Amino acid sequence: MALSSSFLPAWLRNYRREKLGADLAAGLIVTVLVVPQSLAYALLAGLPPQVGLYVSIFPVIAYALLGSSMVQAVGPVAITAIMTYAVLSPLAAPGSAAYIALAAALSLISGAMLLLCGAIRLGYLAQLLSRPVISGFISGSAVLIILSQTKHLLGVSATGDNTWQVLAALLNQLPLSQVPTVAIGLSALLTLALVRTGLAGSLTRLGVSSARAAFVVRLMPVLVVLLGTLAVIAGDLDRHHGVAVVGSVVEGLPAFAFFLPAYDTCKALIVAASVMTLIGMVQNITMAQALAIKRRERVDANAELLGLGAANVVAAFYGGMPVGGGLSRSAVNVAAGAQTPLASIVSALSMIAVVAGAAHWLARLPLAVLAASIIVAAYPMIDLRALREAWDYDHADGLAWLGTAGGVLIFGLEIGIGLGVVLSMGTLLLRASTPHIAVIGRIPGSEHFRNVERHDVETIPGVVFVRIDESLFFGNLGAVELRLNQELENSTETSDLVLVMSAVNRMDATAVEVFAELNRELAERPTRLHLAEVKGPVQDRLMHSPLWASLSGEVFLSANAAFEKLGRQASRVLA
Amino acid sequence: MALSSSFLPAWLRNYRREKLGADLAAGLIVTVLVVPQSLAYALLAGLPPQVGLYVSIFPVIAYALLGSSMVQAVGPVAITAIMTYAVLSPLAAPGSAAYIALAAALSLISGAMLLLCGAIRLGYLAQLLSRPVISGFISGSAVLIILSQTKHLLGVSATGDNTWQVLAALLNQLPLSQVPTVAIGLSALLTLALVRTGLAGSLTRLGVSSARAAFVVRLMPVLVVLLGTLAVIAGDLDRHHGVAVVGSVVEGLPAFAFFLPAYDTCKALIVAASVMTLIGMVQNITMAQALAIKRRERVDANAELLGLGAANVVAAFYGGMPVGGGLSRSAVNVAAGAQTPLASIVSALSMIAVVAGAAHWLARLPLAVLAASIIVAAYPMIDLRALREAWDYDHADGLAWLGTAGGVLIFGLEIGIGLGVVLSMGTLLLRASTPHIAVIGRIPGSEHFRNVERHDVETIPGVVFVRIDESLFFGNLGAVELRLNQELENSTETSDLVLVMSAVNRMDATAVEVFAELNRELAERPTRLHLAEVKGPVQDRLMHSPLWASLSGEVFLSANAAFEKLGRQASRVLA
Repeated sequence: MALSSSFLPAWLRNYRREKLGADLAAGLIVTVLVVPQSLAYALLAGLPPQVGLYVSIFPVIAYALLGSSMVQAVGPVAITAIMTYAVLSPLAAPGSAAYIALAAALSLISGAMLLLCGAIRLGYLAQLLSRPVISGFISGSAVLIILSQTKHLLGVSATGDNTWQVLAALLNQLPLSQVPTVAIGLSALLTLALVRTGLAGSLTRLGVSSARAAFVVRLMPVLVVLLGTLAVIAGDLDRHHGVAVVGSVVEGLPAFAFFLPAYDTCKALIVAASVMTLIGMVQNITMAQALAIKRRERVDANAELLGLGAANVVAAFYGGMPVGGGLSRSAVNVAAGAQTPLASIVSALSMIAVVAGAAHWLARLPLAVLAASIIVAAYPMIDLRALREAWDYDHADGLAWLGTAGGVLIFGLEIGIGLGVVLSMGTLLLRASTPHIAVIGRIPGSEHFRNVERHDVETIPGVVFVRIDESLFFGNLGAVELRLNQELENSTETSDLVLVMSAVNRMDATAVEVFAELNRELAERPTRLHLAEVKGPVQDRLMHSPLWASLSGEVFLSANAAFEKLGRQASRVLA
Repeated sequence: MALSSSFLPAWLRNYRREKLGADLAAGLIVTVLVVPQSLAYALLAGLPPQVGLYVSIFPVIAYALLGSSMVQAVGPVAITAIMTYAVLSPLAAPGSAAYIALAAALSLISGAMLLLCGAIRLGYLAQLLSRPVISGFISGSAVLIILSQTKHLLGVSATGDNTWQVLAALLNQLPLSQVPTVAIGLSALLTLALVRTGLAGSLTRLGVSSARAAFVVRLMPVLVVLLGTLAVIAGDLDRHHGVAVVGSVVEGLPAFAFFLPAYDTCKALIVAASVMTLIGMVQNITMAQALAIKRRERVDANAELLGLGAANVVAAFYGGMPVGGGLSRSAVNVAAGAQTPLASIVSALSMIAVVAGAAHWLARLPLAVLAASIIVAAYPMIDLRALREAWDYDHADGLAWLGTAGGVLIFGLEIGIGLGVVLSMGTLLLRASTPHIAVIGRIPGSEHFRNVERHDVETIPGVVFVRIDESLFFGNLGAVELRLNQELENSTETSDLVLVMSAVNRMDATAVEVFAELNRELAERPTRLHLAEVKGPVQDRLMHSPLWASLSGEVFLSANAAFEKLGRQASRVLA
C-alpha cells in the first residue's frame, strides 16, 4: 500500500476533494480551447493535423504524473513546431512518411536527452543561455513563424530555404492572393488582434472580473474558428472558391508504435535535438517557475526535465511530434481554473473523445483562420522591450540579443543560438580581461577606503593603495600589470605598493607567477609589495605558492591595518 | 638631420662610446658560438644546414633595428624549428625545393601576422595562453625535439607521422645502431650534460666569477663540435665507418628572393602560422621582459612584435626559415657581455664571413654531435617543476599543463595548444559558475564581517547577511539562487536578506532580471531584500534597471550600516 502509493505523484496522493470540480471543469474547457492550436502547430511543424491532437493525449498524462508544476500544460507549442519544420524540411518532404518518422525520432532523441539531464541533474546546463540570448532566439523564431503562416493568410504557396527566399516568394505571389481566403484570414486576424488588445480591458471596465475577462479572451479563437468553419460550409468556399482548409483529419486513435531511430538518423538530428532540449529546458523551467511563484509553489527543475522528457518520449511512440511547455496552453489552463495536474489528465482523456469522434468536423476549418490565430499568438513573442532593456543595461547584452535573433533569421535556428552562446561567452571574457582598478585612499575618520578620483580621501606619501576589482587570471594580467606600472610611474618615489584584494575572488597559477615576478621587479626599485584583505579561498591557495614566501612586504588583514602601520612608518621617516 | 636621425633606433642615436668594445667582442664570440646551433636547428626544421646560417644575418639586423630589447638575440630556435618540421613534413619532402618554398612562406605569413599584431597593438592576444599551457606546450615540444634527434645519435633512420610511430621505429632500429656514431654521439652527450650540470659550479668553487664560468659552459658545445669534427677527419669515420655528417654546406651568400605565397599555400599554412605567431609573441615578449628586468630596462611589447615580425619577413626573403627570440642565443649574448643590439649586428656581419668562406669546414661535422647539443639544449625545456607547481596550486591548472603537453605529443602541436586554450577557458567558466558564497556576521566590537562558519561573530535574529564572492552572470545565477534558497529554508522566519556585494564586480542583464524575480518572490514570503556595499560600476548600471526601483528593501553603503539599522529594528520588534 505504502509502496504502491509512493509510486503516485505527491499531488495525487494527498489530493483534496474540493479541488475536483474545478479540475474537471478546467480540463473539459482546455480541451475545447486547445484543439485549434493543436491542429495549427501540427501543420506549422509540417505534420498531418491530427498529430497535434494525438500528442495532446498521452504525453500530457506523462507530464502530469512526473512533472512538478501544478498548472503547466504541455503539448504541441510554437517554438518546437517551427524548429521541427526548420530542421526536418531540408531532410524530407513535409507530410511524407519519411518526414513523420524523422519527427518521431527527433521527439524521441530530445526526450531521451531531457530524461538524462533530469536523471543526472544537469538542469543547470540551461544556464548556457543568457536571458538576452533566449529572448533573441524566441523573437527571431516568432518572426519565422509569422512568415511561415503569411502564405496561408494570402492563399498562395510560398516556400524557401531561408528567410529571404520565403520573403521574396511571398512578394512574388502577392498578386496571386485569393480574395475569399484573404477576406477570411484578415477578418480573423483583425478580430483576434482587437480581442487581445482591447477586449479584456473593456470587459473589466464593464465590471467583469479580470480573470473571467482573460478567460473570454482565451475563448475567442475557438469562436473565430467556428465562425470561419461555418462560413466555409455555408458558402462551399473550399470547393468553389479555392479556400484552403485543414482537409481530412484521420479519425480514431493511432496505435502505440515503439521504435528505435537508426544511427544515421541520430547523427543527422543530434544537433537539432540538443538545441531543442536546451530550449525546452529553459522554456519549461522558467515558465513553470513563473507560474509557481504566482501560486506560491515551488518547482523542482530536475522533476520538470523528467516530466518533459517522458512527455516527448511518449509523444515519439504515440503520434510523433515534439512537445513542450506551452505558454498559451498553460495560460488557458490557469484561466480555466485548473488546480492540479488532474485538469491536464481530464483534458487528455476528453481529447481521446475528440480524436475518436469529432475529428471530421475539423476537416473544413480554413487554414487562413488557423494561420491568423498562430500569428496572433506568435506576435507577442517578439520581445523588443527585452532588447531595449538589455541594450540600455549593457550594449554587449543587447548585441547578444541582436546576434541571436539575426542569426536565427539569417542562418537558421541552430546557428542562431550557437552565435548567441559564443557572443555571451566572448562578452564574459572581454569584460573579465579589462578589470576595474582603482587607486584608493581612506575616508577621513573612518575605516572605509574609496577611489581617490571619486572621493576626497587621505593618502600616505610614498604609499600607493590599489584595489583590483576582478578575479586574476591569465586573461587580464597584462591589463593589471600595465595599470600598476602606470600608477608607479605617476607617483615618484613609491616605497610601498598595497594591493587591496577584497574583490579578488580567485587567482590562477599564471596570476601567482606574474605577481611573483612583479614582486621581484619591485624589489629592484626598491618598492615593497603588500597584500591586504586577501579572501580566505585565495589565501588558502597562495600559502602554498612561492609568492607567499618571497613577498617583499606584508599581508594585512584589512586595508586599514596597512594604512595605520605604513602611515606610522612614513611619518617616522619624515620626522 | 633630426628627421634622418629619428629613423635610427633610440639605442643607436644615443650610443655611448665606452660600450663599443664590449659589443664588438660579444658580437664576434656569439658568431662562433651560434654557428653549430644554427646548422642544427636548420636540420631540425628539415632544411639545408646553410639556411640556419643565412637567417642568422639579415633577420638579426632587422630585429636589432626595430626590437626594443637590448640583449635579446633572434635567429633559428628549437621551437619554431620543430614546428616548421611538424607542419611542413606532411606537405612536402624535407629538404626538397617545395619544402624550402613552404618554409619561406610559413616564415613570411607568420612574420606578416606579427607585424600586424604589433602595428594594431594586439600584443595582448598573447594572453590567450596561460602559463601552464605555454609551459606544457614547450615541454611537449622539447620531447618531440629529443625524439627527432635520437636517430642521429644512434645512426639509424627512424621516421613516423606521430610520436608513437617514431618511438616504435626507434625501437625497431635500435639493434642496427652504428657503434662509431653511437660512440661519438654518447660521448658528446655525456660531456655536454656533465658540463651543464657540474662545470659552472666547480669553476665558481675554483674562484672563477660565475659570469665567466657560465661563459665557459656556453663555450663547450663549440669545443665538442671541433673535437667531433677532428675525430671524423682523423679517422675518415664518415667515408669508412658510415658516420653521418652535415655534408656539403653551400658556400657564398644567397640572393635576396622576393615572393608572395599562393592563396592555397596561405590557406594550408594559416593555422600553423597563427600558432607560430602566438608562441613567438609569448616567448619573445616574456624572455625580453625577463632579460630587461635583470638589467633594470623596460621592453615595449608591441615594438618586440614589430622587430620579430620584420625579422621573419626578412628571413622569408633571405634564406627562408622562421626565426624567434632564442633563449640560448640570448643567454650566449648576455654571457659574452653584449651591451646593445650593436653586438647582434656585429655577429650578423661576421656571420657573412662564415657563410662566404668558412662553410666548407663544417661539411664533416658529425650529425651525432649536433644531435647531442640539441638534446642537451632541449632537455631543460621539459619543465616538470612547472607542472608540479601548477598542480599543487590548482589541479585545473595542472590538467591544462598535462592536456597541452599530452595533446602536443599525441595529436601534434596545433591541436595540443588548441586543447590547452580550450582547457583554460573551460576552467575559467567552471570556476566562475561555482561561486563562493558565505553567510557572514559582524566581529564583535568591529565593523568587520566574516564567515559565520569560520569565525565567532554576532548576528541578528531574522536577518541573514550573505556575501557573494563572484561577479554575477548568466552562468552562475542558478548556483546563487539555489544557495540563497537553502539559506532561507535553514533560517525560519527570515524578515530581511542582505546581499553584501563587495566582491560582485559585474552583473549582466540576466543577473539583474533574476534578482528582480528573486525580489518579487521574497516579497511574497514576506522577506525584504537589501543590497550593501554595491560597487560604483555595478551601481551605475543597476540604477537604470527595474530592480533598483522595485527593490523591497534598501541599499546600504556598508554591511555595518545595514547591521546597525536592521539590528535596531529587530530589537524594537522583540521589545
